[in-house]
Amino acid sequence: ADSAAAEAARARQDSLTKPPGALGRLEELAIHMAGWQRSERPRIETAQALVFAGNHGICAQGVNPFPQAVTAQMVANFEAGGAAINQLCRASGADLSVHALDLDRPTRDFSQAVAMDPEEVLAAMKTGAEAVDPAAQVLVLGEMGIGNSTVAAALACATFGGAPADWVGRGTGSDAAGRARKAEVVADGVARHQAARGLTLLAAFGGREQAAICGAVLEARARAIPVLLDGYICTAAVAPLFDADPALLAHCLAGHASAEPGHRRLLDAMGLRPVLSLDMALGEGSGAALALGVLRAALECHNGMATFAEAGVSGG
Amino acid sequence: ADSAAAEAARARQDSLTKPPGALGRLEELAIHMAGWQRSERPRIETAQALVFAGNHGICAQGVNPFPQAVTAQMVANFEAGGAAINQLCRASGADLSVHALDLDRPTRDFSQAVAMDPEEVLAAMKTGAEAVDPAAQVLVLGEMGIGNSTVAAALACATFGGAPADWVGRGTGSDAAGRARKAEVVADGVARHQAARGLTLLAAFGGREQAAICGAVLEARARAIPVLLDGYICTAAVAPLFDADPALLAHCLAGHASAEPGHRRLLDAMGLRPVLSLDMALGEGSGAALALGVLRAALECHNGMATFAEAGVSGG
Repeated sequence: ADSAAAEAARARQDSLTKPPGALGRLEELAIHMAGWQRSERPRIETAQALVFAGNHGICAQGVNPFPQAVTAQMVANFEAGGAAINQLCRASGADLSVHALDLDRPTRDFSQAVAMDPEEVLAAMKTGAEAVDPAAQVLVLGEMGIGNSTVAAALACATFGGAPADWVGRGTGSDAAGRARKAEVVADGVARHQAARGLTLLAAFGGREQAAICGAVLEARARAIPVLLDGYICTAAVAPLFDADPALLAHCLAGHASAEPGHRRLLDAMGLRPVLSLDMALGEGSGAALALGVLRAALECHNGMATFAEAGVSGG
Repeated sequence: ADSAAAEAARARQDSLTKPPGALGRLEELAIHMAGWQRSERPRIETAQALVFAGNHGICAQGVNPFPQAVTAQMVANFEAGGAAINQLCRASGADLSVHALDLDRPTRDFSQAVAMDPEEVLAAMKTGAEAVDPAAQVLVLGEMGIGNSTVAAALACATFGGAPADWVGRGTGSDAAGRARKAEVVADGVARHQAARGLTLLAAFGGREQAAICGAVLEARARAIPVLLDGYICTAAVAPLFDADPALLAHCLAGHASAEPGHRRLLDAMGLRPVLSLDMALGEGSGAALALGVLRAALECHNGMATFAEAGVSGG
């Protein structure tokens, strides 16, 4: 990020017709965008949303009440325009594309083996990186994959420690017994792969959509494109990057805090403060796409407001 | 509200391609709109934003570091399109109009007398009621008035009790000494007007913009137009209506939780749950206008998503 541009944006915020700080998080968002766009007046003319989908061998352990076929069915729903993310991208002005990663070839069951070979991790990361539009001025990331809330819990637990049960939530419709089963499976996986750190966490637990998200985040970092992360699964997907170096996520904003109980814990561990907190727990990029609307509003204020001097208002 | 329409909307939410409840507050917002619009498929084609401005005799007590002239200067800024609310209404698609109420004739100092005569209260309420567009499908309310965070604290304290200092915050730039002065003045006013209840609270403490907000809220209630309240001052403005009958506010949503510390306390006391919480403390309707974007997104999902049956997704 360009600290001079960020400082210029901060000075502009303090000159606008409002008490300093009165726009709260909107001011921070504008300054974040200014730093990464290297402009005192950041803009969002092109916003991209990417949703990556994958399937997971851990489903063999009975961690999910829905069949894996739902992943492909939901991808078809995304492509037909019928899912929440389609409506939310239309509402916030994001160009959505969906990338299904080998849905007919789930990763391996992480409680029994490593989920992916290094080559598979790299191939999925490459898919994610290549999906990024170099012209995008902000990137919304999301995912779909039956079973992937268990993968998220395992990635979070392996990265940050703590009791597996603290990282496990309802996911897509698990009851108390389902949550207990998920916690057992996470405990097994974390014990099996305790030596994994950084990107080997991705190989250990999977999955392809998580690796693609990491690839997209790194590509966006290299291109200085700010990123809006979605909920628990999307945030846990980049925990391996955080584990490697927190600075790899300096361009990332947390779009929202999910209703999944592990998400707040994870955001705290990663020093991310969510823009929204609306009890959503859907994934698909839905919370990030909604936060894009707030980000746009922040820039409307930043660029469109009069200064005290321009408006002839006392007290600036 | 029409409970049949609300129930039909709830049933629709449960048929959409997502786990039930996964859109969290967005589902509640869509159902709220359905009840008040008396339609399973509520729409926002016309959104109105009203900002009322007034001046306050309490400023004679030195409760504000800014001169009262700023109220008129900011009204001019609203009319010229340079304020935050202009940008936020453009971003969220609301038609903004600003109503300045006798700015050259401040209310009386509530620590020394009643702020307004009953006739003045009614005239301001009438201005507020008549400002409501009968064709609006949602109404965003906001205010501007140097000194009115002290009025808000007095209204909240008189309505709900507690220590004056618990209801007093920074407002527009008060330091610790300024906050202490505000708390003293609120204590004086609450002691002087302790018999006031319901709408006589408006007469006791003022001001005209608060009365206009109450008039607009009642008019919207009569026309079944859902309302998005803004921050501390806007919420405190309708505390007299809550005191008279909480059902008068059944159509109201809290757009956001302000950074003013009294606002959360007030929202809790009035049973309102904010849509956003972004550390904003500007007024003008800014938080409510931002929440309108979330409300629009909620309806996009509600109306645009495919059902499980339509999309051929398992598990609905």
